Amino acid sequence: MDNKAFRNALGAFATGVTIVTTRSADGTDVGVTANSFNSVSLDPPMVLWSLAKSSGSLAAFTESDYFAVHILASDQEALSNNFAKRGVDKFAGLPVARGMGEAPLLEGCSARFQCKAAYRYEGGDHVILVGEVLEFEYYDRRPLAFLGGRYAYTLPKASATPQGETVGGGLDRSWLNYLIRRASHQFESSLRPLLLKHGLNQIESHLLHVLIAHDGRSLAQFEALLGNPQVNVTEIGWRLASLGLIQTDDPQDKGLPVRLTEAGRALTLNLMAAAKSLEDEAEAGLESGEVAMLKELLWKVIRNTNPGAPRP
Amino acid sequence: MDNKAFRNALGAFATGVTIVTTRSADGTDVGVTANSFNSVSLDPPMVLWSLAKSSGSLAAFTESDYFAVHILASDQEALSNNFAKRGVDKFAGLPVARGMGEAPLLEGCSARFQCKAAYRYEGGDHVILVGEVLEFEYYDRRPLAFLGGRYAYTLPKASATPQGETVGGGLDRSWLNYLIRRASHQFESSLRPLLLKHGLNQIESHLLHVLIAHDGRSLAQFEALLGNPQVNVTEIGWRLASLGLIQTDDPQDKGLPVRLTEAGRALTLNLMAAAKSLEDEAEAGLESGEVAMLKELLWKVIRNTNPGAPRP
Repeated sequence: MDNKAFRNALGAFATGVTIVTTRSADGTDVGVTANSFNSVSLDPPMVLWSLAKSSGSLAAFTESDYFAVHILASDQEALSNNFAKRGVDKFAGLPVARGMGEAPLLEGCSARFQCKAAYRYEGGDHVILVGEVLEFEYYDRRPLAFLGGRYAYTLPKASATPQGETVGGGLDRSWLNYLIRRASHQFESSLRPLLLKHGLNQIESHLLHVLIAHDGRSLAQFEALLGNPQVNVTEIGWRLASLGLIQTDDPQDKGLPVRLTEAGRALTLNLMAAAKSLEDEAEAGLESGEVAMLKELLWKVIRNTNPGAPRP
Repeated sequence: MDNKAFRNALGAFATGVTIVTTRSADGTDVGVTANSFNSVSLDPPMVLWSLAKSSGSLAAFTESDYFAVHILASDQEALSNNFAKRGVDKFAGLPVARGMGEAPLLEGCSARFQCKAAYRYEGGDHVILVGEVLEFEYYDRRPLAFLGGRYAYTLPKASATPQGETVGGGLDRSWLNYLIRRASHQFESSLRPLLLKHGLNQIESHLLHVLIAHDGRSLAQFEALLGNPQVNVTEIGWRLASLGLIQTDDPQDKGLPVRLTEAGRALTLNLMAAAKSLEDEAEAGLESGEVAMLKELLWKVIRNTNPGAPRP
């Protein structure tokens, strides 16, 4: 049997992550990270997990009458890593409450089960520990998941997502092309009133943002960045110069460096603050795991649909 | 003990989904959906799962010496549902291979374990079945997950995602605002050469798409749809009419119905085909579960960032 291949195959089964705690006979708090947890019985309520016979915590768990299983929340990755270590004081600095049999109870988890040891079964190089659940708590927190040897995001499947509806001209509402453009359009629309107030359009605003990062870039460089031959950068330069937002020795010469004026810098900072506030609002509408998930997926799309432009 | 609350708390632990199969003494194929699977031991290799004592399949599993555990792939939801039913011929129409002890082996899973029954343990209203793994297969397929009583998508956390790098003007590369606009920009750029070839810009193309879905809309209606006072729809109408793509009684009157000409319709169908091909390409760069995940998350963003526009 190839151990690594066997682990890989087992890794195809998604799991949550738990920390199981108990108090040893000598009064020491003991806790281990385990993903071998599962439900067993509803009546009586029972759960199980398994612990390596080689674990330093084995004695504590086989001698104690009580243990507590904490199903970790998605933001408890560090806690999970910490309780997977050996030879560290895992409870140092953690607020700990006391449960049945004085088992240490940890905060911030997604669910917790306080168990009375019911059975201990032989399981090869592990012991299978079955506990009867005497008390439990459930918190509405997105749980941590583990898959293929790595932590993973989870997203419950929703049935509410529109599927296959067509919208304006055959562009299907279920297309990425539609969804991404529509989301982009909404971001743009939210910031437009501020641009309008200052008589600017989207591309003029873009040039200001480029200049605040790289003062002295030329209009030709901006043109290359846009990659859109339909945009007349000379006209944009002329407009912004006439508004007193940028300066250049000759707005007709695309190759010359362009710089923000003091007014241009102040306005751009203003626009950036509005963008930051919009960003915060958009992210607040998602759970934290969802934000991270969406970003990873968008990066994939950006990499995949970008054959020519410089790698992001 | 509140059963429903207990189930909810157990549901906080993410799991994969398995179908466990065996062949009963009378030669009938038996299979059940179970998410109570887990690994137990590496040496000897052992896994476990539990089965309700009330299950009609209990006798077959307690009498048989062999069973096969299939970890389901993300596209096997229907199979999972089918094997969770009672009183149907679950194997009807399924291609089935034979494994150890003649256990039926199903196709398309993410991993499979052929087991010799090692222990059967008491577990309340369930029996805990421990099997020694004699053979296993691992397929590199995204597995199905279950969480909170529903199927769920999973996405392994990546460390490669750029974090907190700033880009042109303080717009942070890690912002949704940046990522969504950049992805949108890339979709737009991919389709631009075709537009350029026909002398069209993005907004002119948009009007054509609106008209192919709703021929006879007016420029005023298109203006309201765009919600961008910086766009001069009369100018766009005039341009498209002069290109022979649309017709209206008076391009200067925004209120009149506008219709596609035959040439306009042909060109728009052409643009739509290009968009479809781009969509296929973008989706092909993601796994199928990822496409669905990204779409759900984008819908959330669209709903959240859309205080004014009609509900999508």
